[in-house]
Amino acid sequence: MPARVGKYTIELQANPAVLGFASVVGKKESEGPCGQYYDQCHKDTTLGESSWEKAESRLQNEAIHLALHKANLNNTDVDCIFAGDLLNQCISSTFGLRSLDIPFLGQYGACSTMAQTLGIASLFVEAGAASRAAAVTSSHFCSAERQYRYPLEYGGQRTPTAQWTATAAGAVILGKREEYPTAKVGLQAVTFGRITDYGVKDPNNMGAAMAPAAAQTLLDYFSDTGTAPKDYDLILTGDLGMVGGNLLEELMKKEGKDISAVHNDCGLMIYDLEKQDVHAGGSGCGCSAAILCSVILQRMTAGSLHKVLFLGTGALLSPTSSQQGESIPSVAHLIYLKA
Amino acid sequence: MPARVGKYTIELQANPAVLGFASVVGKKESEGPCGQYYDQCHKDTTLGESSWEKAESRLQNEAIHLALHKANLNNTDVDCIFAGDLLNQCISSTFGLRSLDIPFLGQYGACSTMAQTLGIASLFVEAGAASRAAAVTSSHFCSAERQYRYPLEYGGQRTPTAQWTATAAGAVILGKREEYPTAKVGLQAVTFGRITDYGVKDPNNMGAAMAPAAAQTLLDYFSDTGTAPKDYDLILTGDLGMVGGNLLEELMKKEGKDISAVHNDCGLMIYDLEKQDVHAGGSGCGCSAAILCSVILQRMTAGSLHKVLFLGTGALLSPTSSQQGESIPSVAHLIYLKA
Repeated sequence: MPARVGKYTIELQANPAVLGFASVVGKKESEGPCGQYYDQCHKDTTLGESSWEKAESRLQNEAIHLALHKANLNNTDVDCIFAGDLLNQCISSTFGLRSLDIPFLGQYGACSTMAQTLGIASLFVEAGAASRAAAVTSSHFCSAERQYRYPLEYGGQRTPTAQWTATAAGAVILGKREEYPTAKVGLQAVTFGRITDYGVKDPNNMGAAMAPAAAQTLLDYFSDTGTAPKDYDLILTGDLGMVGGNLLEELMKKEGKDISAVHNDCGLMIYDLEKQDVHAGGSGCGCSAAILCSVILQRMTAGSLHKVLFLGTGALLSPTSSQQGESIPSVAHLIYLKA
Repeated sequence: MPARVGKYTIELQANPAVLGFASVVGKKESEGPCGQYYDQCHKDTTLGESSWEKAESRLQNEAIHLALHKANLNNTDVDCIFAGDLLNQCISSTFGLRSLDIPFLGQYGACSTMAQTLGIASLFVEAGAASRAAAVTSSHFCSAERQYRYPLEYGGQRTPTAQWTATAAGAVILGKREEYPTAKVGLQAVTFGRITDYGVKDPNNMGAAMAPAAAQTLLDYFSDTGTAPKDYDLILTGDLGMVGGNLLEELMKKEGKDISAVHNDCGLMIYDLEKQDVHAGGSGCGCSAAILCSVILQRMTAGSLHKVLFLGTGALLSPTSSQQGESIPSVAHLIYLKA
């Protein structure tokens, strides 16, 4: 049974187990520093589909099928699936997963979606509402650019603070610890975040908008559990990029919690910022999903990484809200994973 | 603890309690057959805001505050809030609820969102992951028209099968039965739906696209629980409208489960179809939310309605997917409420 610890944290006493995970990425991501860790790399970013949106759906579909395969499970073994993405009405999830015939619960947490889906899925398994549950998300550079910014053909200039939406998807299958006692990685705790809004209005600097949300959730978690940064091997944010990542470290330092020794960000891991011309780093639901579902969970399974706080961050704006002069509300959800 | 019954249904053995509920609607809805039951009716559909999107955010904000007030609670008493809407990136929820300072989990189930948020919130309370949880959703005719169809100024013709997006919001606060033993209404079971897609491609006939999803979830529930339509006082779909509602009754009759004696649809209850020129009836997340959070929960609280199956239905399309020639995937989630 889950137990509330402090004001915001939920301890997963039954320790739901990671049964399988997979990542699928595009060409640019496969050429990044983590290229060797992904399950599938596509050289053609259309994935052979007739639109970017259909390509993104396919990323998600491939990720969940690979994760099921690696867990030695069929779709009928999964009781519910939590999925979301950045597209209007979350169509890469609904179209990508419609053939699965698994009870479907659409989630929207912008780039925090991997943490959000994992957090809710883990609670369903912990509580016995699901024997096995799946969490999956995706993003695609081309579908995101034309929806949020400019058509690719326009060739718009990017600001130095802008992040590059990853063409990527990640999926995780969770199950009950008692049924999988030998599973290497489990979920220990979840802290769902509150919306913060510090008045940042620049949609080309989402890292700055999201850093306060990340700091708030991380401080809530440390306060609830009485732990400190040194108690973890890695605090992995996704995706603050260079600007937001530095801001988070500063904000935490001011609160007396220096995370710089153990902090890394999925947006900094997915690309080589100097060589790949991605300005402040990667972003998009698929960025943190693909990093978590490749190098991180692989290292945890192999025993070279043990205690990880995965902190998904999301900027909850839309092009309409920005055009109407609104600031950018943000949220961050935390998952404590232990090998 | 929740218990799985059959393949798809989750029994809420701890019977989470409805602590408060509220509905806020626009002018047209206040002039409909349920006008007397809403907590707040706005005569000006802008709600004094400078955009339709901001007006919709305010609907949601007012609904949650009224529900908290009626439950004699403050925002700090609620451990998490599940919310969603039809707008791109769910901005009426994120902007409408950002001031609440409650852990926020954005949901996307199109018009099934009220059932989806209620279902997940009830599981969080049932499992002890939250002492109190809130579910809220909204829609607004004017924000939906310009996003999904045409700008209002264009004056586009509507087809006879089209539904009218309700300007409305509804909110429910749930709490643990042991802490509120005298609460009149509780949640007994949840069945989350699988995505169905029968190839319907007409975005002006979403009732027809959603009816098979509603039938599938309802049949799953009857099969899992061994119950029949006659075991319930009301099977309330939201929102199939006239076309989809009739289709659902036909589909169920073919399967030997005649629901016509106990079936009603929120899209048929919210407007007077003959006098209010709404063609096939109401729709939008706020439609089923406002009907559930007014006349239905009021009648259940008063003891004149006892066993209700609330079946939220959602069409998981986007304008982009329709423009790319795609069909309309649909989903339906079921909640069993008992007074």
